[in-house]
Amino acid sequence: MKPTIKDVAKLANVSISTVSRVMNSPDSVVESKKVRVLDAIDKLKYKPNALARGLIYKKTNTIGVIIPDIRNPYYADIIRGMEDASKKLGYSLIICNTDRDKKRLFSYLNNFYEKQIDGILYTSDPVFPDYYHELQRLRMPIVLVSTHSMEYDLPSVKINDEQAAYDAVKFLIDSGHRKIGMIAFELTDGIAGWTRYHGFVRALREHDLEECKDNVVFVEGWTYETPDAAASTLLSKCPDLSAVFTVSDELAIGLLCYLNEQGIKVPEQISVIGFDNIRLAKLTVPKLTTVAQPTYEIGYRSVEKLNAIIEQQEDPVLREYLPHEVIERASTRRLNR
Amino acid sequence: MKPTIKDVAKLANVSISTVSRVMNSPDSVVESKKVRVLDAIDKLKYKPNALARGLIYKKTNTIGVIIPDIRNPYYADIIRGMEDASKKLGYSLIICNTDRDKKRLFSYLNNFYEKQIDGILYTSDPVFPDYYHELQRLRMPIVLVSTHSMEYDLPSVKINDEQAAYDAVKFLIDSGHRKIGMIAFELTDGIAGWTRYHGFVRALREHDLEECKDNVVFVEGWTYETPDAAASTLLSKCPDLSAVFTVSDELAIGLLCYLNEQGIKVPEQISVIGFDNIRLAKLTVPKLTTVAQPTYEIGYRSVEKLNAIIEQQEDPVLREYLPHEVIERASTRRLNR
Repeated sequence: MKPTIKDVAKLANVSISTVSRVMNSPDSVVESKKVRVLDAIDKLKYKPNALARGLIYKKTNTIGVIIPDIRNPYYADIIRGMEDASKKLGYSLIICNTDRDKKRLFSYLNNFYEKQIDGILYTSDPVFPDYYHELQRLRMPIVLVSTHSMEYDLPSVKINDEQAAYDAVKFLIDSGHRKIGMIAFELTDGIAGWTRYHGFVRALREHDLEECKDNVVFVEGWTYETPDAAASTLLSKCPDLSAVFTVSDELAIGLLCYLNEQGIKVPEQISVIGFDNIRLAKLTVPKLTTVAQPTYEIGYRSVEKLNAIIEQQEDPVLREYLPHEVIERASTRRLNR
Repeated sequence: MKPTIKDVAKLANVSISTVSRVMNSPDSVVESKKVRVLDAIDKLKYKPNALARGLIYKKTNTIGVIIPDIRNPYYADIIRGMEDASKKLGYSLIICNTDRDKKRLFSYLNNFYEKQIDGILYTSDPVFPDYYHELQRLRMPIVLVSTHSMEYDLPSVKINDEQAAYDAVKFLIDSGHRKIGMIAFELTDGIAGWTRYHGFVRALREHDLEECKDNVVFVEGWTYETPDAAASTLLSKCPDLSAVFTVSDELAIGLLCYLNEQGIKVPEQISVIGFDNIRLAKLTVPKLTTVAQPTYEIGYRSVEKLNAIIEQQEDPVLREYLPHEVIERASTRRLNR
C-alpha cells in the first residue's frame, strides 16, 4: 500500500501539519523536526498524490536552471528558448552556474528546495549516482537539457549526439575527403565525448576509412584556451589531413585561428567542420560549416516538458531527441566538384 | 524624528510583530495586511536601523544578479568574477536575465524581495526613475555593475567609458591614422553610447582631426545581426577610412567578417580596434586589438562592495572606476613604423 502523509507523521513522530509545513514552508519548521520528516519521507518513499500535492504545495511559478559553465556561448540560445517558453507559461527562471563544482550544485539544489521552486532544468552534465540520489531526496520535478541518463528514468531533451557526429563526418566523406581528423572531448564525457567519437568511428567504418580512427586529439571540456595546443598536436600527429571535425564551434574557431597563423588555408588546404552553430559561427573567417543544434528549441521544449510534469499532464516520451542539421558555409571544400 | 517600527504598525493598523513578519517572512502574512504595511513603510520612509535590521532580517546568503542580455559574451567573465567572490564570502548567486524587459525586471526584483535575498547586483543598464523608485520601495542593498547613476546615490563599479574610448582612438592616432571612423551605440545609451562617442570626439578634437567626427554609424544594442549593415553603411559613407573604432568586440568581429568578404585586408587596408576583450578576441582572424575591460575584476569587486553594504562596513568610494587597457594584437597597423 502506498504510504500516506499520516505514515510520514507517525514515523517522524510529528503532527500531520508539521509534515505539510515541511513541504510547504520548510523555513518555518525547526531543523530537528525537518530532518526527521525528510528522513521519514525518504524511508517510506512517500510521494504526495496529485490532488494532495496540489493542496499542499504552493506553486511559486519559478524554475531553477542549473548551468555547468555560463561562459560557454552554447547556453545563450538555450536560455533564450527557456525564457520565451517560461514567459508563455508564466514562470520566472533562476539561473545558477555551478562551474562543474559538486558542492555548488548541491547547495543550489537545496536552495531551490527551500525556495520551493516548481521544478529544475539540469543542463549538459551527466547525472552521477550521488546527484541522482540527491535529486530523488528533494523530490522536485526535473528535466535534463542537452543531456540524458540511460541509467535513470529521467525525462530529457537533447539531440542525438552520435548521429549528429556521424552526419558531420559523412558530410566530409561525401565531399570527397579521405584523410579526416577529429578534435574530440574525452571519452569519459558520456554526453558529448563518447557519443560523438563513436559517431565519427561509425561513419569511417561504413565508408572503409577505419585507418582514420586514430587521427584524434582529445581535449577536456569546453575551452578557448586549449585549441591551439589541440590543433598543433593533431597536425603534427597527422600532417596530411584534408579535413577536421571538431566537437564544438569554439574549438573550431581556435583551429581556424591556428591554421591561419600557420599559413594553412581554409578550406583550400584543410576543411573544418564545427558543432553547435553558435551565433559567432557565421562571423568567422571563413564562415564556419557546422552541425546546428536546435539550441533555442531545446531550451523551449525543456520548459514545456517540465511544465507538463509540474501540471501532471501526460507526456508520453521520456527521452526526447530534437533534429540537428549540417549547415554548409565556407570552411569546408567539396573535393569532388 | 526618525520613524520607528511602532509608527509603521500604527499607521498600517497591525501589530508590531506583523510588521516584523512582513520584513522577515512576507509569505506568512496575508496579502491585504502586507500591502498596508509596505505602504506605511513607504509613506513613513521607515528604515530599520542597523541593529534592528540585524535582528529582524535573516541573512539568506543569496545575491540576486540582474543581467539584461545573457547572450552577450561580455557577461561571461563578469559572472565568473562574481562567483569567485561569492564563494569566498559565502554567498550563492541567482542570475536573472531580463532581456531588457521592464516587466520581467520588476517581477524578478519582487521575487528577490519575497525570497529575502541579501542584495542585488544590477548590471549594465541605466537606472531609470521608475526603476529607482521600485528599488527604493524594496529597500534591498544594491550595487550597479558596469553601469552607474549620476542622478542617484547608488554604489557602482565600472570602467571610465569616456576615457577608455578616448584611449582607443588615441592609440589609432598615435599609430599614424588620420582617417578614423566609428561604429557606436546610440547616444540615448548613456552608459556605453554617449560616453564612448564623446571619448572618440575628444581624442579627435585634441589632435586636430575634428573632420572625422561624423564618420560614425550608430547601432542599437549588442548584436551579431547588424554588424554587416553597420559596416557597409560606414564604408559607403566614408570609403577612405584607414581605421575603425568599434564599441564592442562583437561588432568588431562582424566588421572583420564583412571586410574579409569584401576583399579588404585587415590591417593592411583598414585597422580595426574593438572594445571589451572577450575571450574570442584572441581567436579572430586576425587577432583583435581591443580595449580590455577588467570584467572579472568588475564582477569580483561588485560582490565585495555589496557585501560591505550588507555587512554595514565602511565603503568610502560610492562610484568606483577600475582601470582599462589597450591590448594591441594583429588587427591594427602602425603607419608610422
